[in-house]
Amino acid sequence: MRDALVGAAFQLFLERGYEETTVDDIVALAGVGRRSFFRYFPSKEDVVFPDHERCLGDMTAFLSEEDSTDDPVQRVCDAARLVLRMYAENPTFSVQRYRLTKKVPGLRAYELSVVWRYERALADYLRGRSTGPRADTLRADVVAAAVVAAHNNALRSWLRSSGEGDAEKAVDHALGYVQRTFGSSPGGPVDERPEDVVVVVSRRGAPMWRVVQEIESAFGQN
Amino acid sequence: MRDALVGAAFQLFLERGYEETTVDDIVALAGVGRRSFFRYFPSKEDVVFPDHERCLGDMTAFLSEEDSTDDPVQRVCDAARLVLRMYAENPTFSVQRYRLTKKVPGLRAYELSVVWRYERALADYLRGRSTGPRADTLRADVVAAAVVAAHNNALRSWLRSSGEGDAEKAVDHALGYVQRTFGSSPGGPVDERPEDVVVVVSRRGAPMWRVVQEIESAFGQN
Repeated sequence: MRDALVGAAFQLFLERGYEETTVDDIVALAGVGRRSFFRYFPSKEDVVFPDHERCLGDMTAFLSEEDSTDDPVQRVCDAARLVLRMYAENPTFSVQRYRLTKKVPGLRAYELSVVWRYERALADYLRGRSTGPRADTLRADVVAAAVVAAHNNALRSWLRSSGEGDAEKAVDHALGYVQRTFGSSPGGPVDERPEDVVVVVSRRGAPMWRVVQEIESAFGQN
Repeated sequence: MRDALVGAAFQLFLERGYEETTVDDIVALAGVGRRSFFRYFPSKEDVVFPDHERCLGDMTAFLSEEDSTDDPVQRVCDAARLVLRMYAENPTFSVQRYRLTKKVPGLRAYELSVVWRYERALADYLRGRSTGPRADTLRADVVAAAVVAAHNNALRSWLRSSGEGDAEKAVDHALGYVQRTFGSSPGGPVDERPEDVVVVVSRRGAPMWRVVQEIESAFGQN
């Protein structure tokens, strides 16, 4: 019944527009009562994002699981991939919703709130994994924001291209950039020759990102 | 009159609560008509954030000015400081609003929308300053998100501490972290001996952030 309500709602949103569709219209098309609607969705906005609560729950559960990796940044990148997977499961629906959300400011605001909750879940995990005082909440917040921004950069490109192309590959590329910048096993398996020595020579005053690039390529991580 | 409306609104929000206060209550206390209220503020929510539109305008203007720095990351950090300055201009008001916003989900959503617009302004500037294709929109989005997250980490600490302490110093520290990570003149004046050579020796497989730390200290930027 939940799926039927979502299906009916989107059919009407696309035909008439979001604002012009009432909950009564949706339940009439789905052939159920108002009370059934509100059992599943607190408001009309919630039917637009039927899977985010589940996904937030999955993310929290994933982050609280026993942790096999030593790299908290890789862990939050993997957590972000759960969101991508939710979108990629149903490309047509995701693209329709993306177009709808762009047009309706209220839905955009709703989406920003959801994104904020994902970001907090990642930051809370990173704060828990760090041991120092204030400086580490800073790093946690910045890394969480970077992960979300990179993920959403790739996700939005994919949605804009109507769900064409390989979303997972695009997100891997984007998260790889964040992992190389902040992580401890940047963007790939640990090197097989961990005791090799790398020497980097650089001019003082060179841009830091350029130095990091040099090092990455010396480390074979590019 | 605009200030009088903001003053009356906050007096009532603090006495009665935000939801319990109507626009009619506000205009009655301020001694003006409803029409005057709506000339300044499209809705009751807008009176809670009376300066963000101006600040967004200032930020956009600042970013479109002739640019004396070669470092776009420093430029967006300076743009973010405009927001801090707006909060720090009036600590009592900022702290009251922080407490109010935490309690009212609608205001929290409004604030997230504003934060998003700041972030987009920074990202758009960075996109304009970069020359390549796709990879650079990724970097622009990630850096903008990192700047906003760092700024807000410091701002929130200051607001939580009831506006005690030096907000500018806290924000400088937070933005310095982002500049060291992404910028080309990280966290301070350009070095006086730009042709010095720095040699860093590191084990392959060392965590990238640790390597970056080593380099930063070799570069005298820590």
